[in-house]
Amino acid sequence: MKVLLCQPAAKDNAAWLAHLRGGMPGLQFDEWQPGLPPVYDAAVVWSPPRQLIDEQPQLRALLNLGAGVDKLMALPLPASMTVVRLEDAGMAVQMAEYVCHALIRFFREFDAYERQQREARWRPRRPHVRSEFPVGVMGLGALGARVAQAVQQFDFPVLGWSRTPRDLPGVRCFHGDDGLPDFLQGTRVLVSLLPLTPATRGLLNRQTLEQIQLAGYVINVARGGLLVEDDLRALLDEGHLAGATLDVMQEEPLPPEHWLWTQPHVTLTPHISAQTLRPEAVAQVVRALQALARGEMPSGVVQRDRGY
Amino acid sequence: MKVLLCQPAAKDNAAWLAHLRGGMPGLQFDEWQPGLPPVYDAAVVWSPPRQLIDEQPQLRALLNLGAGVDKLMALPLPASMTVVRLEDAGMAVQMAEYVCHALIRFFREFDAYERQQREARWRPRRPHVRSEFPVGVMGLGALGARVAQAVQQFDFPVLGWSRTPRDLPGVRCFHGDDGLPDFLQGTRVLVSLLPLTPATRGLLNRQTLEQIQLAGYVINVARGGLLVEDDLRALLDEGHLAGATLDVMQEEPLPPEHWLWTQPHVTLTPHISAQTLRPEAVAQVVRALQALARGEMPSGVVQRDRGY
Repeated sequence: MKVLLCQPAAKDNAAWLAHLRGGMPGLQFDEWQPGLPPVYDAAVVWSPPRQLIDEQPQLRALLNLGAGVDKLMALPLPASMTVVRLEDAGMAVQMAEYVCHALIRFFREFDAYERQQREARWRPRRPHVRSEFPVGVMGLGALGARVAQAVQQFDFPVLGWSRTPRDLPGVRCFHGDDGLPDFLQGTRVLVSLLPLTPATRGLLNRQTLEQIQLAGYVINVARGGLLVEDDLRALLDEGHLAGATLDVMQEEPLPPEHWLWTQPHVTLTPHISAQTLRPEAVAQVVRALQALARGEMPSGVVQRDRGY
Repeated sequence: MKVLLCQPAAKDNAAWLAHLRGGMPGLQFDEWQPGLPPVYDAAVVWSPPRQLIDEQPQLRALLNLGAGVDKLMALPLPASMTVVRLEDAGMAVQMAEYVCHALIRFFREFDAYERQQREARWRPRRPHVRSEFPVGVMGLGALGARVAQAVQQFDFPVLGWSRTPRDLPGVRCFHGDDGLPDFLQGTRVLVSLLPLTPATRGLLNRQTLEQIQLAGYVINVARGGLLVEDDLRALLDEGHLAGATLDVMQEEPLPPEHWLWTQPHVTLTPHISAQTLRPEAVAQVVRALQALARGEMPSGVVQRDRGY
């Protein structure tokens, strides 16, 4: 089996190759470059160019070094090509800590205390009532389930929403279009962990976000395209939303003059909520390659019709 | 049974009385004031004056509306008086979220990203390695155990230290003077949840703090008297410590000119890490009074010789 590594933007491809070769000594791993002969069986990729697919249409599998495959799905992939995405690979715990940090910071008003520290004067705040801050998690895959579990640890009521029915201990689960209104109306802190697909693009808009509870909060750690940013801005201006923490934006990196940089109730980070960790990612890629070599379907195969 | 409520600094004593009376309708609850006849059996207290003890030496029990009893222990309490402290009463989850927020903020460098947002320019940081941030929890009572459990949720290695042996799942437990060096040397993020007693006053000093791992961090959510602040300052200046989050200080409220306000690597809050929540505290006080009325020892009795 011959495998390409194709992540043109990465600076550490040599280290990735060494790890992959160490993980599967029997296989040939080469770094992709334009003009290679079409002799490869699989490719390990992150944001590959269309040229990869044009030149290597015989590839049986693409192994994506991330959980989201929305950009891969925009390439003209042959229908028979198997696409595998990372499922956890060290990302779930990072998502859990990112979301818990943002949630606790909002609930406990630690940002207000930091402003008070800068003024060297305390004005203690009355504690909020935990039961009035139900947390609704959209997307209940490996990442969403871990986030829901971590939030429960802090005794917040937790709701979940997913495309198809799920059952998670301690989580009030809703699903599908029919379940969305009840989920939104029961939620005050909305956590978005959805895949970006034609069905979810722009799902967080005025019509949905104004259904969440008053003085609500939005945490988007999935994809910028899920959220209609102008609708968020209006709901913040109107006071229906108290704030937001966004790790992803419609345009990344965010243009210097964008209003999001300076909205006082919005906290931004540069798409770092869950970074791919090489040892964990290599371990999962190796398991997938081993399954493919045995002629089996690996875990994490993307269903092309639903887009994740 | 006649019970006094004595928390002179509180502004909501009427609400506390109503809750207590609702919780034990058969009992007489009165708000303390100077000069009352010595006819009371017990007192529910927070920071009571010495005058309470001088005028009501017949009190069989003091029920403290907090977990720390160091100030009560400084009063001339008759040896036969039973002192009961709050054990959890809604505080453990608050402690867990305070500590996890401070820990995650340090580990993920979210403060650096907030500074970058103010400059409208991203310089993403390389993720730290989780296994290089072992968290050591000092004090493994109801609060410490809950904190240790919450930190484990985020896959950090967790160590624990207590006066007497404890056994907590997933936590490397140490105890006593003999266990302290190994505990400190295995710790990078030190979380202090110890009671303040003659044995623990000033326990966090240059000699102990310089044993924790390089670029370490201190989170003190217990009592200011545990930490020698000048030693912390020196270790921050020398770079052995990367920072600290302090909810408690030697002098509270912190004087306006104190160096802690402006130390760039220190985050302060005004003793709000775990606030007493009335419903939970009343429930625990009622359980204690019921036990006393039956002639039994309630849970949470302070051992006077050890001071907590």
